[in-house]
Amino acid sequence: MSYDIEIGRSKRARRTYSLDDIALVPARRTRDPRDVSTDWQIDAFTFPTPIVGAPMDSVMSPASAIELGRLGGLGVLNLEGLWTRYEDPQPYLDEISLLPGDDMPRVTSRMQEIYAEPIKAELITARLAEIREAGVVVAGSLTPQRTQEFSRAVVNAGVDLFVIRGTTVSAEHVSQNQEPLDLKEFIYELDVPVIVGGAAGYTPALHLMRTGAAGVLVGFGGGATSTTRRALGIHAAMASAISDVAAARRDYLDESGGRYVHVIADGGLGVSGDMVKAMAMGADAVMIGAPLARATDAPGRGYHWGPEAHHHEYPRGARTQMSQVGTLETVLNGPSNHVDGTSNLVGALRRAMATTGYSTLKEFQRSEVVITQRS
Amino acid sequence: MSYDIEIGRSKRARRTYSLDDIALVPARRTRDPRDVSTDWQIDAFTFPTPIVGAPMDSVMSPASAIELGRLGGLGVLNLEGLWTRYEDPQPYLDEISLLPGDDMPRVTSRMQEIYAEPIKAELITARLAEIREAGVVVAGSLTPQRTQEFSRAVVNAGVDLFVIRGTTVSAEHVSQNQEPLDLKEFIYELDVPVIVGGAAGYTPALHLMRTGAAGVLVGFGGGATSTTRRALGIHAAMASAISDVAAARRDYLDESGGRYVHVIADGGLGVSGDMVKAMAMGADAVMIGAPLARATDAPGRGYHWGPEAHHHEYPRGARTQMSQVGTLETVLNGPSNHVDGTSNLVGALRRAMATTGYSTLKEFQRSEVVITQRS
Amino acid sequence: MSYDIEIGRSKRARRTYSLDDIALVPARRTRDPRDVSTDWQIDAFTFPTPIVGAPMDSVMSPASAIELGRLGGLGVLNLEGLWTRYEDPQPYLDEISLLPGDDMPRVTSRMQEIYAEPIKAELITARLAEIREAGVVVAGSLTPQRTQEFSRAVVNAGVDLFVIRGTTVSAEHVSQNQEPLDLKEFIYELDVPVIVGGAAGYTPALHLMRTGAAGVLVGFGGGATSTTRRALGIHAAMASAISDVAAARRDYLDESGGRYVHVIADGGLGVSGDMVKAMAMGADAVMIGAPLARATDAPGRGYHWGPEAHHHEYPRGARTQMSQVGTLETVLNGPSNHVDGTSNLVGALRRAMATTGYSTLKEFQRSEVVITQRS
Amino acid sequence: MSYDIEIGRSKRARRTYSLDDIALVPARRTRDPRDVSTDWQIDAFTFPTPIVGAPMDSVMSPASAIELGRLGGLGVLNLEGLWTRYEDPQPYLDEISLLPGDDMPRVTSRMQEIYAEPIKAELITARLAEIREAGVVVAGSLTPQRTQEFSRAVVNAGVDLFVIRGTTVSAEHVSQNQEPLDLKEFIYELDVPVIVGGAAGYTPALHLMRTGAAGVLVGFGGGATSTTRRALGIHAAMASAISDVAAARRDYLDESGGRYVHVIADGGLGVSGDMVKAMAMGADAVMIGAPLARATDAPGRGYHWGPEAHHHEYPRGARTQMSQVGTLETVLNGPSNHVDGTSNLVGALRRAMATTGYSTLKEFQRSEVVITQRS
Repeated sequence: MSYDIEIGRSKRARRTYSLDDIALVPARRTRDPRDVSTDWQIDAFTFPTPIVGAPMDSVMSPASAIELGRLGGLGVLNLEGLWTRYEDPQPYLDEISLLPGDDMPRVTSRMQEIYAEPIKAELITARLAEIREAGVVVAGSLTPQRTQEFSRAVVNAGVDLFVIRGTTVSAEHVSQNQEPLDLKEFIYELDVPVIVGGAAGYTPALHLMRTGAAGVLVGFGGGATSTTRRALGIHAAMASAISDVAAARRDYLDESGGRYVHVIADGGLGVSGDMVKAMAMGADAVMIGAPLARATDAPGRGYHWGPEAHHHEYPRGARTQMSQVGTLETVLNGPSNHVDGTSNLVGALRRAMATTGYSTLKEFQRSEVVITQRS
Repeated sequence: MSYDIEIGRSKRARRTYSLDDIALVPARRTRDPRDVSTDWQIDAFTFPTPIVGAPMDSVMSPASAIELGRLGGLGVLNLEGLWTRYEDPQPYLDEISLLPGDDMPRVTSRMQEIYAEPIKAELITARLAEIREAGVVVAGSLTPQRTQEFSRAVVNAGVDLFVIRGTTVSAEHVSQNQEPLDLKEFIYELDVPVIVGGAAGYTPALHLMRTGAAGVLVGFGGGATSTTRRALGIHAAMASAISDVAAARRDYLDESGGRYVHVIADGGLGVSGDMVKAMAMGADAVMIGAPLARATDAPGRGYHWGPEAHHHEYPRGARTQMSQVGTLETVLNGPSNHVDGTSNLVGALRRAMATTGYSTLKEFQRSEVVITQRS
Repeated sequence: MSYDIEIGRSKRARRTYSLDDIALVPARRTRDPRDVSTDWQIDAFTFPTPIVGAPMDSVMSPASAIELGRLGGLGVLNLEGLWTRYEDPQPYLDEISLLPGDDMPRVTSRMQEIYAEPIKAELITARLAEIREAGVVVAGSLTPQRTQEFSRAVVNAGVDLFVIRGTTVSAEHVSQNQEPLDLKEFIYELDVPVIVGGAAGYTPALHLMRTGAAGVLVGFGGGATSTTRRALGIHAAMASAISDVAAARRDYLDESGGRYVHVIADGGLGVSGDMVKAMAMGADAVMIGAPLARATDAPGRGYHWGPEAHHHEYPRGARTQMSQVGTLETVLNGPSNHVDGTSNLVGALRRAMATTGYSTLKEFQRSEVVITQRS
Repeated sequence: MSYDIEIGRSKRARRTYSLDDIALVPARRTRDPRDVSTDWQIDAFTFPTPIVGAPMDSVMSPASAIELGRLGGLGVLNLEGLWTRYEDPQPYLDEISLLPGDDMPRVTSRMQEIYAEPIKAELITARLAEIREAGVVVAGSLTPQRTQEFSRAVVNAGVDLFVIRGTTVSAEHVSQNQEPLDLKEFIYELDVPVIVGGAAGYTPALHLMRTGAAGVLVGFGGGATSTTRRALGIHAAMASAISDVAAARRDYLDESGGRYVHVIADGGLGVSGDMVKAMAMGADAVMIGAPLARATDAPGRGYHWGPEAHHHEYPRGARTQMSQVGTLETVLNGPSNHVDGTSNLVGALRRAMATTGYSTLKEFQRSEVVITQRS
């Protein structure tokens, strides 16, 4: 990695690239889209659709996690969201979708109040049980701060994949106030595979891989619902971040003598082309929120928000209105009568793979990309 | 070619340039525009106007193909469009132009329905015969998927130039479902010259040249009517793509001991300046749609759409409204009272050649260009 | 420093970067925000909040300077503003906030009239005394042109820190018309520490450091209230400027055998992310105007203007309307229900330091930054 | 000059920079603006204001050329404009300013009609005589196409400086239809100094210098009234163009044993900052149109257009509405109550020179500039 640009006499930097800065290019060979496989295999599970539903209340309810599972993907329920705070969260989901859009501070304040309700361990158990009964892969997420408190409830409820997700999660969190989560020990003792992140660089990701995680989420508040760059000055351009973490996967594979840790791009994937590019940069799967929030049957009812939007101390996101394009099934598999990359996500991936001549996702990671001006 | 930019630790890329990123610069010598020749010669045909009308229903009907031929260019009829599906396509052209613009999904759906009507071989014959009777060069296009089914009808109808055009056409298409078109064999057996594409890189174009094609279309869904970049993540910046394919022409010329394959820029050429730049990057001719759709006598009646717009599975383009600037003759040859590059396309090319001191298109390909910020 | 870019055959240049062009990236380690110190120590003074209120009438009155001091920062009163021209400036502050926004030339003219009132030495004494009585650190600013005339009044009034601030202040001002201020002699004779600027490059800053200044302001009319770039063609991209001046600090530290001159970023810091980035580029503290003008208790009452806006000869800024986000305390320390980097500035800095794993501002200057497309 | 960027496999290019891409930076020394000289000396003439009024009917009438001369600059009358076509052009100027702005083709057509009126040699004589009687330096311009026809009338009328100005003027114009103007012979035989252009590169400018021209206009249709880039694909980024032509001046100075040919930036200088940057890139003076069209006493009465706007064959510009900022004197010398670089042009230049420490324009050409993102 070359820090080849001099910003000033005392600081050098590298240039990073977002998905908007790159594009795939057609290759010598093309392929029939029907011959292409989009299978994603992690641990004991195989998903025909390499799409993970982001643990956000506007996107994943128990019902929509089940539906996503039936459609071949993986739904992750936010275990610190409304479904584990309220016996019946529907009135609050309704209220959030009805808060007046022209008074953002009021929206933020009200969301902070709604999310101040404590999390109940028994609701965690109940929600995950509901998903399990539907016969799909069960996954739930906690933040690192809450993992120690609630992980037992999660594991006892019978989760298949456990997700630890925060804005930034490092393998080495330092605090003088509370004993931080020892990820390595935690994962070692847990009997389910863990996906952890966000991480947005080679070294942080490598350290997370060494904790024993089955997958690493690549991202840092770059999604549609976050204003992290403006507020904190921190930003991880997604194309560069995925490539860096994919390099960590490769190096860790060697270092560990063969442990393949999955790289899951998380954040900023707004349309099907973004998802395609994330895969081409080295992602094994994508965790998406906004594209799923456009489903007519999404819990957000045309609105989308992330956990940052109602952070009690430092809210950074916003509740965003989304255009609706069809059912979750239409969003994933079409048929599409929208031409802007918002529906038939899997069809788009399949077609992009066919056009560039690849038949598996692992091969597709080798795609040639170019840097090109944003249109 | 240097993949000199590190996007991340596991991926390198080259930077590519669109026509908007470049400009010609005046040279030491200027020339009288009247001394400039814009002749384009391919196979046995010489066209005073190096403009090929794109096979799109909004641009090329039999009548407008004839008119373009009379004006010195080459009209290519889309043999999978309305004119070969319907005995009288006019009511459908009218209907498309009247579909309400504020409901894009409905426009897309209705176009999908209209284009679901089967193609009739006898209409292919009739339409091409109509063009032939007018005494201009006859050209029609099919997609690779339909070429085997209808090519006999086309050749029997007496076509002068045959165009095989898809979003991406490779010389090596792989399918387990149907026997793909063997381009090399097909072209070898055909007794008319074939223009084939789109191709958007050195290697894909070189392979197409080796099939025996007389010309290669350079492009990949970059036109005004396509949202390919957003939906599929695939994009070929036009200036780089033309230069790459021109390099393939040069290398194939050597490899083949003298076969000159024409490079025809296809897509994203919205105004006369784009056409000029495409020539300067190495194109022998340009295939254009949008500029011709601005003619008052264009079939699209102020609207423009490509085949992607009504793709039955994965529509990606949109029916776009175009400002109208005058007859096809005015668009090509002026007199111009529009100052924005939408009329007098040939006059603009002539003037640009004169200003940079070149007298033939082949010489003009050597023009110096610079990279400059978009304005 | 490499002047590696050829603009043309007779001029080379370096590329410079603004804060919008860069971003911080998360690192291997994260830290508890509560363990982070934002202390800034200059001369005998320690400020828990490394924020200096810009000497602008819309931002700093005696009352708001006192309030900022109480909140841990440093307020600097403009000693050439309304508070030292008028016994009671409130009617004029009111009038400026009520001037009709659709007639900018009239606003400029009226402000020129209001600021034509002479400065009174006794008002300088009175205003500084008022601040001193409140028990906070006392600071006032003059332009280089007025420093000789009024500096005695300032020092006699008992100022703790003296600020000499102009658009550009050099250590070597040449004039045939009036004896310029000899900064080195002036600072040597004064018995209070002096902060001086703006400077926007390595060499100008190094020369200012050699005058004995305790701090250097980095900037050149880059703030929200200035149109210097458009009118004068002069611009100092802030990220590069801070890094250059930080390099001067490092080199002067060696050259002087250990004198540490503080680098204070001044101008163009509109949101908390900008402040974070300025620190990461090497600033010891930030002087801000616009973010403080968004306080409901700011003297500008929702408007913001700098001294350039009413320059008698060459006005360059404009009175700008600002959205209001809460009290000065809310702007600095939250609680925030605004998600756009306009409130809880100190919280944002603390969180950014924690996320990148640093516990002091001095360490935080080593942060890794990347160059990334503007969003 | 390094053609270091590969656009594609068959074309390399250099990157060029417009004035918007660069900025001056403050230096170690500052200077009192009153000590700065903006004198420009060409041939026997010294102009306190290095501003040449562009020969455009919206900017230069005999009266405004005289006024500009009185204010220290040089007015150039367009000898192919309305003042030499009509005994009383005022009705036509009035009409142009009243043509409805929402029907651009009609505006263009009507202007083409108005400018179809033949040029009268006797009106050339009369207009130049009127300027001469006012006691200011007399200058008029012709296009290369008309120079042979009318140059005698011009010289006999007693012009001090003769301007030959076209979009692109080369020293080597080739035509099979008419004997082109032999610039070298023409200038040699003429007894007045000639300024000629536009030229936009090192080689074209060097060749123009070798014809014996006293000055070269740098530009190619980059002004506010031209759409050359869009229509012809030709563009000369102004910062690079000026630097290249300044290099030709330097090299020709050596080659000729001491003949200093003036470099006059012409086009795209919309605000005072642009003028400042043009000087810093190496221009000796600037020819401006748009900034003067903003004068309340400009002939265009709030509108601005160039000769391209009514070209009989290939119109490329547009009649553009301009905000008005004050009299010509205010535009040049202030007092300014506009803060956007549209008034007090000379004051801005003076202040920029003072801030960067230079006292003459020739020294100012050495200014350090940086490349910076457009704001």
